[in-house]
Amino acid sequence: MKDYIQHHEWKIIEPSFDPAVNLVSESLFSIGNGKFGQRANFEERYSGETLQGSYVAGVYYPDPTRVGWWKNGYPDYFAKVINSTNWIGINVEVEGEELDLATSQVKEFSRELDMQSGILTRRFVAQLPSGKQVAVEAVRFTSIVDTDNGAIRYTVTPLNFSGTVTLTPYLDLDVKNSDANYDDKFWLPIAHQASAGQAFLSGETKKTGFHLGVAMSYELTLDGQPLTAEPTITDKPMWVGNTISQAVEQGQALTLYKYAALISSLNANNDAIEATALASVAAAKQKGFDTLAAEHSNAWAEKWQEADIQIDGDTAAQQGIRFNIFHMNQTYTGEDARLNIGPKGFTGEKYGGVTYWDTEAYGLPFYLKTADPSVARQLLVYRHQHLENAIKNAEKLGFKDGAALYPMVTINGEECHNEWEITFEEIHRNGAIAFAIYNYVNHTGDTAYLAEYGLEVLIGISRFWSQRVQWSKRRNGYVMLGVTGPNEYENNVNNNWYTNKIARWTLEYTQQALDTVAQQDPARYDAILAKTQFNSKEDEVAAWVDISKNIVLPVDDETGVFIQHDGFMDKELVPMGDIPAAEYPIHQHWSWDRILRSCYIKQADVLQGIYLFEDEFDTETIKRNYDFYEPMTVHESSLSPCIHSVLASRLGYEELAYKFYLRTSRLDLDDYNNDTEDGLHITSMAGTWMAVVEGFGGARVKNGVLSLRPFIPAQWQGYAFKITFAGVPIKVSVANGAVTVENRGDKPLVFKLFGQCQNLAAGDSLRHIL
Amino acid sequence: MKDYIQHHEWKIIEPSFDPAVNLVSESLFSIGNGKFGQRANFEERYSGETLQGSYVAGVYYPDPTRVGWWKNGYPDYFAKVINSTNWIGINVEVEGEELDLATSQVKEFSRELDMQSGILTRRFVAQLPSGKQVAVEAVRFTSIVDTDNGAIRYTVTPLNFSGTVTLTPYLDLDVKNSDANYDDKFWLPIAHQASAGQAFLSGETKKTGFHLGVAMSYELTLDGQPLTAEPTITDKPMWVGNTISQAVEQGQALTLYKYAALISSLNANNDAIEATALASVAAAKQKGFDTLAAEHSNAWAEKWQEADIQIDGDTAAQQGIRFNIFHMNQTYTGEDARLNIGPKGFTGEKYGGVTYWDTEAYGLPFYLKTADPSVARQLLVYRHQHLENAIKNAEKLGFKDGAALYPMVTINGEECHNEWEITFEEIHRNGAIAFAIYNYVNHTGDTAYLAEYGLEVLIGISRFWSQRVQWSKRRNGYVMLGVTGPNEYENNVNNNWYTNKIARWTLEYTQQALDTVAQQDPARYDAILAKTQFNSKEDEVAAWVDISKNIVLPVDDETGVFIQHDGFMDKELVPMGDIPAAEYPIHQHWSWDRILRSCYIKQADVLQGIYLFEDEFDTETIKRNYDFYEPMTVHESSLSPCIHSVLASRLGYEELAYKFYLRTSRLDLDDYNNDTEDGLHITSMAGTWMAVVEGFGGARVKNGVLSLRPFIPAQWQGYAFKITFAGVPIKVSVANGAVTVENRGDKPLVFKLFGQCQNLAAGDSLRHIL
Repeated sequence: MKDYIQHHEWKIIEPSFDPAVNLVSESLFSIGNGKFGQRANFEERYSGETLQGSYVAGVYYPDPTRVGWWKNGYPDYFAKVINSTNWIGINVEVEGEELDLATSQVKEFSRELDMQSGILTRRFVAQLPSGKQVAVEAVRFTSIVDTDNGAIRYTVTPLNFSGTVTLTPYLDLDVKNSDANYDDKFWLPIAHQASAGQAFLSGETKKTGFHLGVAMSYELTLDGQPLTAEPTITDKPMWVGNTISQAVEQGQALTLYKYAALISSLNANNDAIEATALASVAAAKQKGFDTLAAEHSNAWAEKWQEADIQIDGDTAAQQGIRFNIFHMNQTYTGEDARLNIGPKGFTGEKYGGVTYWDTEAYGLPFYLKTADPSVARQLLVYRHQHLENAIKNAEKLGFKDGAALYPMVTINGEECHNEWEITFEEIHRNGAIAFAIYNYVNHTGDTAYLAEYGLEVLIGISRFWSQRVQWSKRRNGYVMLGVTGPNEYENNVNNNWYTNKIARWTLEYTQQALDTVAQQDPARYDAILAKTQFNSKEDEVAAWVDISKNIVLPVDDETGVFIQHDGFMDKELVPMGDIPAAEYPIHQHWSWDRILRSCYIKQADVLQGIYLFEDEFDTETIKRNYDFYEPMTVHESSLSPCIHSVLASRLGYEELAYKFYLRTSRLDLDDYNNDTEDGLHITSMAGTWMAVVEGFGGARVKNGVLSLRPFIPAQWQGYAFKITFAGVPIKVSVANGAVTVENRGDKPLVFKLFGQCQNLAAGDSLRHIL
Repeated sequence: MKDYIQHHEWKIIEPSFDPAVNLVSESLFSIGNGKFGQRANFEERYSGETLQGSYVAGVYYPDPTRVGWWKNGYPDYFAKVINSTNWIGINVEVEGEELDLATSQVKEFSRELDMQSGILTRRFVAQLPSGKQVAVEAVRFTSIVDTDNGAIRYTVTPLNFSGTVTLTPYLDLDVKNSDANYDDKFWLPIAHQASAGQAFLSGETKKTGFHLGVAMSYELTLDGQPLTAEPTITDKPMWVGNTISQAVEQGQALTLYKYAALISSLNANNDAIEATALASVAAAKQKGFDTLAAEHSNAWAEKWQEADIQIDGDTAAQQGIRFNIFHMNQTYTGEDARLNIGPKGFTGEKYGGVTYWDTEAYGLPFYLKTADPSVARQLLVYRHQHLENAIKNAEKLGFKDGAALYPMVTINGEECHNEWEITFEEIHRNGAIAFAIYNYVNHTGDTAYLAEYGLEVLIGISRFWSQRVQWSKRRNGYVMLGVTGPNEYENNVNNNWYTNKIARWTLEYTQQALDTVAQQDPARYDAILAKTQFNSKEDEVAAWVDISKNIVLPVDDETGVFIQHDGFMDKELVPMGDIPAAEYPIHQHWSWDRILRSCYIKQADVLQGIYLFEDEFDTETIKRNYDFYEPMTVHESSLSPCIHSVLASRLGYEELAYKFYLRTSRLDLDDYNNDTEDGLHITSMAGTWMAVVEGFGGARVKNGVLSLRPFIPAQWQGYAFKITFAGVPIKVSVANGAVTVENRGDKPLVFKLFGQCQNLAAGDSLRHIL
């Protein structure tokens, strides 16, 4: 837990310099644009503790996974998005003395991330060992308009001397990766060139062969007047740069505008990368820093129009929720279906920047309600692209006939994790992907997507489920043995209720989807049947129907709750309140076997199913299960509190709902788990958003209709959220004992408010007294 | 499967040279004496594929265990017995041309291990690239009398030339370890000295700080006449040697006698190692090769008197069983309670030379019946020495008040394995240790051991069991959740019958042991109670009684068998015959999750319990369980067939018993699993012996009385085994339709034959018609 970030409605502010939290700040102040991202490292050299991090989406390296004991079927590597070209670097010398905040006396310092405009500013006054003082202002952004470009304005002002200031803007590809097994380097040099005012560097990742070319150019001004100093040029395979020395009078501002363009082989042919990057950086320079920045900021303003949440009377909460929305939008933009959302986004290297079920279960609901449907659609297309690999993955495990098992962890569709109890057994991720398809279609009505992509995926997943269950004579039903549910504090269990439930649901929904596509697009339907060799459709579907009817989903006689898995009720069932405080979190204090045989639940499991399939259950059932399971839940996944918050809201447990909301809303800003230095918890940020919109706001989409049931947490004076539904942007405000719904679009919206149907014309608003 | 070893009753013979099987032969022809061991590497340099291996018992290195995902409570290292000083090396040059079988034409070659005398002989004729031919005979042994010494007689005879032969006997500590993670070296040099005729080298293991000093000396003869050629001396930190050049006429035999002494810090103070080693090697040289060899061979003859098994009419079977007995005796002698039995003994590096439950479950029964009781006793003392560590290990996992959990894998009492499902959950090993205590006392009547060592261990283990179970309201009984049974093809199961059974048995036997010691040695009893803080003995024991009465041990209603674990009967239960042959062994063809959720059993599980507690069950019960479980057992552990063979014998399934016996009797000799190159399956060798003595011979010890119930496999004409019981060596011969039992000792023996009590005077024999 830390408390050094100043509270502010729109800005993240670090008011002074503390090297001890520098790694944390580097994560918090990260900027990105969905295509590349950059930790908040300093431009000038810094010899203190830092995790230099510049990440290009989709550029990964397959690191060999080493474990003591290999199991058949394990993947050969763990993919990771690797650190790439340092494009922000500007070394600074003052009369031959290097500027380095680790060796200087830092007299003033602030780092500010303006989330409204997407611009990061750092200001400081440093006294060098010689006693010379300089003021520096560094402003930078990664453009969300010109998405290949980053730009920096770096100003140095001598405060107590006049003398030569030397600036060296450079590009460096000789970078380290924090989680390299043995300090491996992952890049091989390709081309490099440097000339006065411009440089280019390209490299290739080992094994994967991605190319990345980065170009830079710059302009220099003195008190705003252009300078044309002749640089010294350095042109080495992994390092190119210009060095410019300039006499600067005391009080004069020497400003370097540095422009960068990052072009990877995802977006250009290898042999066009150099030209593309140079052209891009030239265009950026031509446009100029101020124009680039203004366009970028305007685009951010538009994003906020779609997705903002306002909270009145609680600046910390306001800052927290905007921070989360900001980073969700920095991480994924939906422009490229080959990309996805790593648990740390572009803010660190932990979890390797690869894709988990977090995307479908947490990320997708956020983008569905805050962005154009095409954004969420791209996330689904990503999985469709990986269908063939998912089928191969299932084959590797002994499945056949087009059964698809999506990986637990992936970057390219191949599994890249290596704990058997996760990789082989935590198969509910397959269900999350099927549910995401439903979720998307339910929100958007885009059944054409089903025909084009979704149905094939559903067929593959349903085939997997139908092969993964087996008939148990003893149980007189279908059982699913040897799985790990969302609760990873139990492994290798039988008949995890959530997994059986989502499997059954998938089988049923796939039948619906088959019917939908058959009706709407018979030609495509026939094509899919042919492609998937769905020859014996009737037999297959009959088997699915049989499984749906007969899969075991036991209810406990005594308590009436759904049984988490076969052995759960044999456990000692004691609430987590009985655990001594000193033993939290239990995963740091208890041995793994003790955790496994305890009743303690890491994150929503039965309740995750109740959250997804809420409509099937009456309030009493939801309450019964919530009251039974939540007290045994330790919430040691950042993905847990949000689901509980939404359900608590649903049950009218308003205090609890708020308590759970708080647990993740400032998770990173306050470094709650002491791990923000590794990067931000991007996917759980979406969960926090869900706690507000689905929880406090009660937003649901049922049968394609939006419904709202808002309340206001006692701690707040008011709040408002913006979402888009069926192409209509709306704003829901809750304050002063009333809910106001505003149709900000250009067509009418039919929705439900507290169960009542409402028809709201374009531009109109509606006020409802609570 | 290979078939290149010549069948012979007493010898292992490789009749020709095939570099492709050299690694296999290096394992098969390994020699050792319980204190150190040596793979059958060549003395002269060999540039072909070889695993140079010289291992000193108890000298290990804690290698960091690297896994992708760490669990709380995992050990920090994996201990491994490391390769140490190469003491056999003798480089050979012929007129300046190096002798290397990889570059020579090998005209004749044989490697012979005479198991009767414990001597390894290699003979070959090699034609060097120059065309020069030499005959070589290399004879060596690791003395089981002078257990610090190894000796070699190495003779070179020029066959088609006269010229200078140069021999370089040396010691080399700059050795590789085959399973080093990153080609690490584990030795640091300490001292070295070389002079004419003698050299010494010592080193220290990194981290663990073991010292090892090795001294060598030699004598040289030409056609039997002593030579006194002046050597060239090499004296480097990790390499010392003498080089002697001698003119040899065609047909003359140049013989080098090389003596070595290996002294580790287990057996001498660090500063006495050098003097001890030099004195030892001087004494060996003084005694001379022939005397050393004769004494060694005589000692082997004595061992065979105690432990031999003769098989008539089946040379392959005869060779196989002697090979197993030979290696069991090479590996462990009971002289040092700090040592134990690695799964590969001194024959390779796999499994790190560390101790598993194999020792108690397989090794101990062998030594109990074939060696002085002190040998088996040392194995138990080893565990007593580790009691404190076992208590710490349990504390690490959250247990308390003196509960002891012995490690799954250890060398020094600390756990050094890192799969949670094994380390944390395969806790039945604790029961195997308790059972071994009972087994020893039952065989020997040595209740004094109980007072001195056994009782404390039993109390610690019983405390563990009593804390590891928990009361289940639902089951109205004690349950044991989250365990892995002997069948490692299921992990993290609840109420594994075998584990629950052995836990209950331990609780009961500990109470007996408490009573025994209280009666026989009240003072020691009080001391143990004080030491173990058994303050509330009555409460603790009352809890044990309660657990014994109420622990769940379910019987299946439908089949009447013991249920392997809670979920087992929900599985699809199909015999292994249904698996296509191409999919064997399933651990190489099936994904791990598929194996886990299948019904297939790796090794005896319920049947392991029935084997141990046979007396509690009538034949019908044994048969019912055997007939149910064996068909689902894939025997993919080398420890599986023997238990099934013994039970099949018990049930009169004689063909099956023989079939299972065959599966391990020549496991290594025929390289059945294609892994002999890694080393021999030492612990399963004991199982093969059990299949003969306990299986075919029907030998049991019940209430301290030996009983026999032999039959003869149809494939054999006759067989005989020697065992020792209650200090009386006996020989049981089965042939020509009769069993003959011979009392070879000097006191009478009361035993049972086919249930009939027999009293056999010293020197008498008894013939029983079958």
